[in-house]
Parts: sequence; C-alpha cells; structure tokens
Amino acid sequence: MNVSIIGLGLIGGSYGLSLKERVKGLKVFGWDQDHLHQLAAEKLGLVDTGCASMEAAIKVADWIILALPVNAIESNITIILEALGPNQLVIDFGSTKGEICRAVEKHSKRDQFIAAHPIAGTEYSGPSAAFSTLFKDKVMIVCESEKTRPIFIEAFKNQCAVLGMSTTYMDALQHDNHLAYVSHLSHIIAFGLSTTVLQKEKTEINIFDLAGSGFDSTVRLAKSSPDMWTPIFIKNRSAILESLDLYLEKLHDFRQLLNDSDEQGINTYLERGREIRKILK
Amino acid sequence: MNVSIIGLGLIGGSYGLSLKERVKGLKVFGWDQDHLHQLAAEKLGLVDTGCASMEAAIKVADWIILALPVNAIESNITIILEALGPNQLVIDFGSTKGEICRAVEKHSKRDQFIAAHPIAGTEYSGPSAAFSTLFKDKVMIVCESEKTRPIFIEAFKNQCAVLGMSTTYMDALQHDNHLAYVSHLSHIIAFGLSTTVLQKEKTEINIFDLAGSGFDSTVRLAKSSPDMWTPIFIKNRSAILESLDLYLEKLHDFRQLLNDSDEQGINTYLERGREIRKILK
Repeated sequence: MNVSIIGLGLIGGSYGLSLKERVKGLKVFGWDQDHLHQLAAEKLGLVDTGCASMEAAIKVADWIILALPVNAIESNITIILEALGPNQLVIDFGSTKGEICRAVEKHSKRDQFIAAHPIAGTEYSGPSAAFSTLFKDKVMIVCESEKTRPIFIEAFKNQCAVLGMSTTYMDALQHDNHLAYVSHLSHIIAFGLSTTVLQKEKTEINIFDLAGSGFDSTVRLAKSSPDMWTPIFIKNRSAILESLDLYLEKLHDFRQLLNDSDEQGINTYLERGREIRKILK
Repeated sequence: MNVSIIGLGLIGGSYGLSLKERVKGLKVFGWDQDHLHQLAAEKLGLVDTGCASMEAAIKVADWIILALPVNAIESNITIILEALGPNQLVIDFGSTKGEICRAVEKHSKRDQFIAAHPIAGTEYSGPSAAFSTLFKDKVMIVCESEKTRPIFIEAFKNQCAVLGMSTTYMDALQHDNHLAYVSHLSHIIAFGLSTTVLQKEKTEINIFDLAGSGFDSTVRLAKSSPDMWTPIFIKNRSAILESLDLYLEKLHDFRQLLNDSDEQGINTYLERGREIRKILK
C-alpha cells in the first residue's frame, strides 16, 4: 500500500515517520509546495520518496493525507477529489472541520474522503520539528464518518490504532465548537499574553530568567505558526468569538473581585477554576 | 549553622531538602502551623528536626526562612524581628515584596531581614510536592538589599550559589510590577481559562483526552493553591490590575480583528506575539 502525504511540516512529517516506523508493507510518499521543506523531509527520512508534484503524489497513492493549513485544504480538496480513482481515499488533518465538510458535502466522491483531526501538536513547525511519537496515546477525531465508505473508516481506524491512537467520532460543528474552547482559545490567550508582556517589558525582559515564574508554560503556544493559526481562527470564527466572549466575561468577573479587594470572592473563584485538576492528568 | 524553615510546603520543603543535600555543616529545623504538614515533612526528610513551636524554631536558628503565604509573612514578620538576637537573620520567600518591605522599613532590626523571592515553583503544593532540584538554575531576587547588613547579603548569595541559583537585586516595587506581568497575570489567565472551559464543557469534558490540544499547558497553573494565590493578588492588586487591563486591551484588539475577519491583521498580531520565542529558551 502507498500513502502520500501532502504537506511535510510538523504534522505531516511526524505522520510519515510514524507510519514508516510502525506500519509494515507500506511505502510513504510526500510532497510539499515549499521545495526546501520537501528536501528537508526527504533528508530527515520523514518519507520514503519525495514526489515531483502534487499530482504525482496523488496518482501514486492508495491513501492521500492532507496535512496543510486549513485554508489550503479547503482550496485543494475538490480538485483532489476530482482526480481520485474509484478506490483511492483522501484524508484531511485540518484543525477545523465544519467548512471543509460543507465544501465536499454533495461531492459525488464524498465517500472517498475522511474528515479527520489528530489532537496532537507542539508549538514548533516545519519538517525539522517532526518526531515519530507525536501521535502516540493521542486521539484522532473523525467527523461525519457516516458519509465515508465504511471500509475506509474501518481501515483508517486500524491504522490509527497501530500508531497508538484512539479514534473518536463526532459531528463537524460539535468538533469546531469543542475545539474553540479546548484548543483555539488557549492559543489566543497565549498570543495575547505574549503581546502584553512584550509591550510592557520592552527594555527589561532580560532582567532575569523567566523559567519558574509560570509564564513559560502559559505563553508557550505563542510560538506557534501564524500561517497555520490565522486560517484556523478565520474558519472557526463564530465558535471562537463565543468562547472568547465567555473567557472575557470570566476575566472581567475576576477583575471586579480584585478591584473590590474581595478576598473571599477571589478565593471562591480560584477554587472553582482549580476543579480542572480533577479532569487533567 | 542552624537554619529554621517556617512553612513546610512546596517552597519551604524543597529549600530544606536542597540545603540538606548541598550545604555541609548545616542543620535544618522546621515548623509548620499545620501539624500534619510538619509530620509529613519530617517523614519525607525535608528537614532534620521538627520544632514544637514557631518560637522554638526561631530560637534554635541562625537563619530563619519564612516560606508562608504573603499575608502570613506580613502578619508575623514584626513579631519575629522582635524575637531576634543580635546575630540572627530572617529571610522571607514571599511572591510580593512591596508591602512586606514597607511593613519593616523603620524597624530597628531591619538590617537583620532579607526580602527575597525565589523564582521557582510548580502548580502543586504541600510537603509532598517538594523536591530537591526545584531551585537549581533558577533566580533568587533580593529586594532593597542595601537595608540589610552586608555580611548577611553576602552569605545568603553564597548559599544560593551552592543551591545552583543566581541572585538578582531590585527595588521592591519594580519587583512587584515585573512579577505582575510575568507571573501573577499568567496565573489569572489560567484560572480564567479553566473556569471558562469548565462552565462550557460541563457535560462533555471527558469526550476525549485533552492532552495535545494545547489546553493542558495553558491551564496548568489553575491547579495552584488558592490559599497561596489569593493573598498575592490582594497584596499586588494595583500592579496586577494594570497588567490585567493591558492584557484585556490586547484580547479586545484580537477580538476586533477576528470579528472583522481581518486575515492580514490577525497574521500581524500573531507574528508580533510570536517574538516571544526569541526570549524564551
């Protein structure tokens, strides 16, 4: 079986590496529109063989994985579906699922498409950030699986299991709404904190090492790629605005308590937030 | 030389353990107002000897370390200074420094006091969270060092160096203002995010594992102790309100860009925030 990965950054590159390490009898092809990225991916062994074009990568593969920014997935998916033979499968790994599912909803080859989202990543990007255990013990979300040929869903689920991933099924809008809260909002928060501190501490940021202050983990996601995240925010705009408004409301609540020096109120607020420790490992 | 640690939680316990492991010819005494904490600290070997009372811990020691919530430091510091013999030293490890420095400013034994803040911690608390490498490669901030007897400052700096810490000197208000941005704000952000997600995701939080979504690191600090953090927020209220207002302004800027679907504007905003990667290791 041949798998082609379109987009050889952190996600695509790590997936290629994982497949190579864990799935037998598979050949991994790859293509990236940034030729330097593709050369790096080949050199790092993230794929077995680089392809000369996206068309070539599609043609050679049984399965085509799209590991691209969400806007690039959306602008390519119809063209790719048109090019598919009757037994080929295309899987997208985009971080938003609503618009992509809408875009292919009525396509005659909709049953050869899986809308997936591996819940895995780091703040780094590009092929050099890829590593083979990125997906281990993580979750693969598949949206609107009832619209894909069942044999493909079954086979993809099995491949995920071999990579150490569990598979969860959900509605595309439910996915986007959920991710707005548990992922997209966290990124906005980190970028906002970073911008705040950089503005304030222009001259004195290097006074002392920030490690240990709590800042480093809270701001970590602000190192993420703007080219990846801008389209996610745009594509999931309404769910993110809803989550951001609720967050702003909670911060304003805290601000009011602090402004009033309401010690008991602050303590209660913190105790409520601290409940998260029962959920996070 | 005898050192007594008052307060045997994460910070006090880890400091005791570090001293025991790295400083020769030292005896570490300890006391905690929570008797169960003290018993745990003794059992875990965080101190050599537990004391029967705070008075006993003060009496036996050359140096007394206060590793207490900042309100408890402030309400005890004068009593402790009164009890000191002429060659004893008291050091506080509180996370805010302005009010404590003001409280002892005119005390006749001010030169036997060091206002310090080790920039180290985790989201966990209590003696069971203590570990011997917490302070390694971290920074100890000392405020208003010119008001302490130079021989004490020199000796404390040397002790910090033995524990693997560098020492930085700054003004107490400058410290509080700086920490509002790089530490206190991060904690407020985490508690706000936690509260937001817990409210929204009441019924579905366990749908899938959150590891890998970015949420876990952004919200990590919301596991911190409300009893430690409420007094910090209250004591550093004005600097925190200033930092929180700037942060809210930055989030509102982002909200506006997203509301307008301003792709270029969002990209520029993220690129600016991403500059933090040049500062953080």
